[in-house]
Amino acid sequence: MKVKVPKTLLTEHVALLERVIPTRSSNPLFTYLGLALTPDALVLFGTNGEVDLEVRLELPTEGEGRFLVPAQPFFQLVKSLPGDQVELGFGAELSLSSGSFSTRLSLAPDEGYPELFFPSLEGPAEPYPLQTLLPVEELLKALSHVRYAASNEEYRAIFRGVQLEFSEGGLRSVASDGYRLALYRLAKPQPFAKKVVVPARSVDEMVRVLKGMGEGEVALALGPGVLGLATSGSQGAAATGKGQLRMAVRLMEGEFPDYERVIPKEFPLKAAFDVEAFREALRRVSVLSDRQNHRVDLLFEERRVLLSAEGDYGKGQEEVPVRLEGLPLAVAYNARYLLEALSPLSGQAVLLLSGPTSPSLVRPGEAAEGYQAVVVPLRV
Amino acid sequence: MKVKVPKTLLTEHVALLERVIPTRSSNPLFTYLGLALTPDALVLFGTNGEVDLEVRLELPTEGEGRFLVPAQPFFQLVKSLPGDQVELGFGAELSLSSGSFSTRLSLAPDEGYPELFFPSLEGPAEPYPLQTLLPVEELLKALSHVRYAASNEEYRAIFRGVQLEFSEGGLRSVASDGYRLALYRLAKPQPFAKKVVVPARSVDEMVRVLKGMGEGEVALALGPGVLGLATSGSQGAAATGKGQLRMAVRLMEGEFPDYERVIPKEFPLKAAFDVEAFREALRRVSVLSDRQNHRVDLLFEERRVLLSAEGDYGKGQEEVPVRLEGLPLAVAYNARYLLEALSPLSGQAVLLLSGPTSPSLVRPGEAAEGYQAVVVPLRV
Repeated sequence: MKVKVPKTLLTEHVALLERVIPTRSSNPLFTYLGLALTPDALVLFGTNGEVDLEVRLELPTEGEGRFLVPAQPFFQLVKSLPGDQVELGFGAELSLSSGSFSTRLSLAPDEGYPELFFPSLEGPAEPYPLQTLLPVEELLKALSHVRYAASNEEYRAIFRGVQLEFSEGGLRSVASDGYRLALYRLAKPQPFAKKVVVPARSVDEMVRVLKGMGEGEVALALGPGVLGLATSGSQGAAATGKGQLRMAVRLMEGEFPDYERVIPKEFPLKAAFDVEAFREALRRVSVLSDRQNHRVDLLFEERRVLLSAEGDYGKGQEEVPVRLEGLPLAVAYNARYLLEALSPLSGQAVLLLSGPTSPSLVRPGEAAEGYQAVVVPLRV
Repeated sequence: MKVKVPKTLLTEHVALLERVIPTRSSNPLFTYLGLALTPDALVLFGTNGEVDLEVRLELPTEGEGRFLVPAQPFFQLVKSLPGDQVELGFGAELSLSSGSFSTRLSLAPDEGYPELFFPSLEGPAEPYPLQTLLPVEELLKALSHVRYAASNEEYRAIFRGVQLEFSEGGLRSVASDGYRLALYRLAKPQPFAKKVVVPARSVDEMVRVLKGMGEGEVALALGPGVLGLATSGSQGAAATGKGQLRMAVRLMEGEFPDYERVIPKEFPLKAAFDVEAFREALRRVSVLSDRQNHRVDLLFEERRVLLSAEGDYGKGQEEVPVRLEGLPLAVAYNARYLLEALSPLSGQAVLLLSGPTSPSLVRPGEAAEGYQAVVVPLRV
């Protein structure tokens, strides 16, 4: 049983698994990397109990089998091999050779290793009865634009995840920590109606894997307590440099309480500005802000907003040009929350104020885009 | 009292002080940045009690005075100022403005702040009666090539420093943790004879500051319990972008025990090799080594050395071409120690073996250079 793999193909895909497979675990088998030979592919897989990942490299192989190898030494070795090709031979041990280097790594029996279930690309199939196809780029935005708003607090269990809402109207992602809220709406109608919550840390892994997928479409599938992803990959991994990726993440139980009521609908004041300039000024002024509540005051006037802060170190101020619609207003925010709400944006942004103490909305300049964030002003 | 500073000039030099000034300290005054206006310069200074640093920027100024400003907000602000110029005005507060941004930072009285003493460039002067001039590049090598060998163990107090030995014969730097030893010899005769030990962490700061000095010469001065550095800097900081740097570091008490006797003198075997190729192979093979002693076996033969290791994960081997003088030999090392001993080298390196269990010497291929390291083989 053996296979020859171009070194760069192996290192790039192994890097994805290296993020998932833990160096230590209460289940020692999780620290192993799975390697399977099929008649036409080398398959690498791993899990940390929360996230399962599989990489399929379509290559000419000899033989069939499934093996577990200690992940850490394998990762370290693969990164620094001297040759352009890597030869893997499977027997009682794994023999790995590349250029002048050769090694034999001990293999562990795969008894007790959990069976990993991934979605099929051919459409819904057990254990994933629900499936939808999404552009990689859109799913990436839906996850990465809202991730920051998820809670880090142990006691806000459900808020430690990102909620994905599938419906006829489209896909919506939501995150909140109870103080602020981030939303992303994708108008594409979905073939099923369902709300699921993905743990924020698993969202981070999904984002990393999706970034590695490049353009194209991804199948997103749901089963009992699990969300799966699959890319089509491409035939002949050695030539294209692309393997097929499949992923499964455990879902959280429950769903978000109703959050619609906190989203303001009417805005006496609307301020549009260049988001880079505003963000830089806000960052500078916030250095002087009180270290407890990071308060920065915003005084909206005719054509400008004056940002100011005062704390133990002194006070600072800066003005930024804005285009106002509505009446001038004074309002204060926690600078960190406002900076995070603006973080997914570039170009023009809009701040919509419902009042000096009621929730504000942050949106991209072109309302067509799907992102918006709710930030609550500090009481003056 | 005010001064105008080009932003890049300020940020580059402030970055050096940011490394030294602590964010927290049992002496709260250490968390402040010192700013002094002289008739022809803005002087910035700071200390952490172990390392003092001063940056002198020759610039047109108005007024004279000495002030302390909270370092952390100052550092944060300076990095992100919007304008190309920064205006500093000193009064009851520090006013700082740049482009559309302005701030007032509170100033602290400098009562209780330690007086910092730096060497003079005009030659030996109290409190630095001894002084020598060295090329920046050579002092940098003397420190950075041996630093790795210093001990991290609390109980080997004196070995937690780097010893500098000044004599008629030249300057020598030495570091050891009792298991290995690194030396650097600079043949330039020194105007005084003295051995001093600099704490390894202060050596790291010296290396960082010396790297910022570029080429040229540096004055190295000694006083009671203190070592000082000074660069000549250049006139008109705004035009040249260079300030004058001065530094003082506290010395350790005592000196190294005699180490000459552990340096082997006779070598039945000498092996020369390309250090990059050898190091890469050693790194790969050591992935398989025992995690306790990192043992890698080296079998020297006619034209090659065979590196091999075996541990819990399996075994690996690789061969590297060498030019041998002497009789073939088998020897084993802790791979980490051997890798660190090779770390300052590039191009050709030489390993000189006094026997399979007695100390070996690592040297650059061209013996003219001043670095050498002693590594003790593992008992087979």
